[in-house]
Amino acid sequence: MNYRMIFRVLGQILLIYAELLILPLIAGLCYGESALPFILTILPTAALGGLLLLPKPRSRSLVARDSFVIVGLGWILISLLGALPFVFSGSIPSYVDALFETASGLSTTGASVLQDFDAMPRGVMFWRCFTHWIGGMGVLVFLMAVLPMSGEHAMHIMRAEVPGPTVGKLVPRLKHTARILYLIYIGMTLIEMIALLCAGLSFYDALLHAFSTAGTGGFSTMPDSVAGFHSAAVENIIAVFMILFGLNFNLYYLLLIGSWRKVLRNEECRAFLLHILIAVGLIALGLRMQCGVETRRALHDAFFNVASILSTTGFGTEDFTRWPEYCKWILILLMLCGGCAGSTGGGIKLSRLMILFRSAKCDLRGMSRPRNVFRVELEGKRVEPATVRASLTFVTFYAMLMFLIAALLSLDGVDIATGFTASISCLSNIGPGMTPAIGPAGSFAFFSAPAKLLLTLAMLLGRLEFYPILVLFSPRTWKR
Amino acid sequence: MNYRMIFRVLGQILLIYAELLILPLIAGLCYGESALPFILTILPTAALGGLLLLPKPRSRSLVARDSFVIVGLGWILISLLGALPFVFSGSIPSYVDALFETASGLSTTGASVLQDFDAMPRGVMFWRCFTHWIGGMGVLVFLMAVLPMSGEHAMHIMRAEVPGPTVGKLVPRLKHTARILYLIYIGMTLIEMIALLCAGLSFYDALLHAFSTAGTGGFSTMPDSVAGFHSAAVENIIAVFMILFGLNFNLYYLLLIGSWRKVLRNEECRAFLLHILIAVGLIALGLRMQCGVETRRALHDAFFNVASILSTTGFGTEDFTRWPEYCKWILILLMLCGGCAGSTGGGIKLSRLMILFRSAKCDLRGMSRPRNVFRVELEGKRVEPATVRASLTFVTFYAMLMFLIAALLSLDGVDIATGFTASISCLSNIGPGMTPAIGPAGSFAFFSAPAKLLLTLAMLLGRLEFYPILVLFSPRTWKR
Repeated sequence: MNYRMIFRVLGQILLIYAELLILPLIAGLCYGESALPFILTILPTAALGGLLLLPKPRSRSLVARDSFVIVGLGWILISLLGALPFVFSGSIPSYVDALFETASGLSTTGASVLQDFDAMPRGVMFWRCFTHWIGGMGVLVFLMAVLPMSGEHAMHIMRAEVPGPTVGKLVPRLKHTARILYLIYIGMTLIEMIALLCAGLSFYDALLHAFSTAGTGGFSTMPDSVAGFHSAAVENIIAVFMILFGLNFNLYYLLLIGSWRKVLRNEECRAFLLHILIAVGLIALGLRMQCGVETRRALHDAFFNVASILSTTGFGTEDFTRWPEYCKWILILLMLCGGCAGSTGGGIKLSRLMILFRSAKCDLRGMSRPRNVFRVELEGKRVEPATVRASLTFVTFYAMLMFLIAALLSLDGVDIATGFTASISCLSNIGPGMTPAIGPAGSFAFFSAPAKLLLTLAMLLGRLEFYPILVLFSPRTWKR
Repeated sequence: MNYRMIFRVLGQILLIYAELLILPLIAGLCYGESALPFILTILPTAALGGLLLLPKPRSRSLVARDSFVIVGLGWILISLLGALPFVFSGSIPSYVDALFETASGLSTTGASVLQDFDAMPRGVMFWRCFTHWIGGMGVLVFLMAVLPMSGEHAMHIMRAEVPGPTVGKLVPRLKHTARILYLIYIGMTLIEMIALLCAGLSFYDALLHAFSTAGTGGFSTMPDSVAGFHSAAVENIIAVFMILFGLNFNLYYLLLIGSWRKVLRNEECRAFLLHILIAVGLIALGLRMQCGVETRRALHDAFFNVASILSTTGFGTEDFTRWPEYCKWILILLMLCGGCAGSTGGGIKLSRLMILFRSAKCDLRGMSRPRNVFRVELEGKRVEPATVRASLTFVTFYAMLMFLIAALLSLDGVDIATGFTASISCLSNIGPGMTPAIGPAGSFAFFSAPAKLLLTLAMLLGRLEFYPILVLFSPRTWKR
């Protein structure tokens, strides 16, 4: 392991992070709030960052494992440091709670322990939603966009941070790819903010909800989430943008360069929209028939919540834990699917599920005709056997961790359904679970400190798709 | 597809099945009951069997797909026909209920819709437990042991019916392997019966519980299962035999030929016993500390129920749905594990989980060092990449079906935990679920007819490890 180079990149991450922390500080100052919580965070972050830059690396080469270690350690460090403003401002006094909230923000989960929304300074609330935005596209992709980072090791880092079974470059140079991704990200965030302003939100609410939507996070400035605005227009704008941020960002690049044919032919995008259509139809039917909600309202509620869950955002307008049982199960199935590869969404990812489904079909055919070889295809191209196997392993890891975390949560005495859906919700970076305690009207505050730490780990595992965190726990990583 | 040859083997299955049905008929006659329900079953079974034997096959060769079709159709046919005695005797008047009970018996699940135990004639009760015994080792393996069946196609059939990631022959000739397996099976069933007789059970109760234990099924002659005997000795004997029938039968052959060293070194067997030890310890601790049960009693209850769940038998002595939450989750995790490969138990199978766990470890190492190749090993031998992939696909199928079935059950209005554990319980061929409605004190009777048919399918899918049933649903199978 090239420790000095690892330190160097970690130092760069922390310095960038310190600069990003200046934004909420300014926001707080605009509202006449104390800058102290942020100054007390920026100083140690910058100091640690500077310290890590001191040892000069003898070589700039990084192997794949080093990149995983950088991503894993980097995300843990920024979670640990990002929790400080919550503690110093007194709005979330317990450090474990603040850490949970920060990891939930950075991993774009949106599960919250916050109970007193009014006691939180506006600058700290800005920071809370801004963590979604930072975590959505990834802090290392940001680093790549602004700093010179060369060759193979940058690709490893990008693979480790960007979700999905395969990560491709848009343009030959990775730095330009990272820049394009961030420009699209910033552009779409601005468009959403303007739309929300037009719908009547204040600048502050519009910006913060745009941050949360862009990262597919789900933190809101209102105690009862988006429902608090009592505006169908706001809900519709946010629903549409949740879907847009759940799609692969490569599609927007293709649109920008005019390859709209490729966009229309994209299998994952079609599957994503088809899932939304079917789920909205089935849920609206259930709300209409079983709960007597009028058709228009049923379609509206179904649309918002399906978009919120499938994109793994987790904004709430309705307490869906009180919906008919089969509607809840549709949402649980959507929770597992998650967004598209290369989006800011979490979950298993649709393209991975499509690879698995096709691989299973090939296996079934192969069982019947052992002498033939069947190819798995996606987006008109052959999927490499290594990618198929990696997808299979991913789902196996996901299933194992889902059960393990749910089982460990039971030590807190929560019932089967709460433990099970809390585990899925955190691993898939969604936010709410499917029982009233942790649903849109509930909170994760009642969990014990060890359970919160476990869920913090689950959120980071889900966001980074396991390997960068798991590699830190492997003794082999630390052997000379 | 060689239809004539498929018909021929199906005909042989039905004729053997008709002969097996004579046993409960005799049992009924011994107790002075009417033979009519069985005669009305044996006649159409034998007639259909004879009819299927009429077309003379032009070639005796069967490809892998044909074998899967034989196993899938064969199991569906014997489930459909085996339900008749329940209906004709009037003890389970609804055919769908009777079909559920029969598939639950043959698949060795043990989930029951029976509510009035006293109304069931003793001959029909004999048949109910006997289906466990037939399904445990498999009706096709039985066919192989008694009929001449040659070469490659017999091996395909054996692979399709015997659970586990790899199926090996004990001796060069498959027919002899099948005979050895059945002799061990019969021998162990007899030993258990004698032990139960010594513990004070009647011949009838001892024989029927030995059938249920041998198949790792779980049907009992008593409404409150094994608890109805109020005998710690009976519970201990059954617990020990549940563990013995959950082990790979190859081990007993190795013991018989004196290779006890190989038995001691068997990794799956060790893991199985280790799982029992840890689970018993943790559950007994919970019962002692949280429920105030005295230590001896806590250990006894934990031992019986862990053995019952891990071997996928499902006999009950205690209503574990009232245990502490974490104890329930330990049982859910054991439900997923299931027995050893080559046992009569269900579930994912320990050896498959061990392959997955080791493969995941290799993948993790491979991510860090992409240039190295890591081998997955089990029982001191390299596991073929095809076997690793088949295991990964199996778990993916299992997870998908688990969620799909749980989601569909919600249309019956059952809550998340009931649907979720009913789905696992039927797919893993266990019997009880983890909520009071379907727990050891509950029943599957309240489900609607479509839900019962879905669970019937789930039980057969689990018993045959998916492929033989899934292949029937593939349009390609039926194309010329």
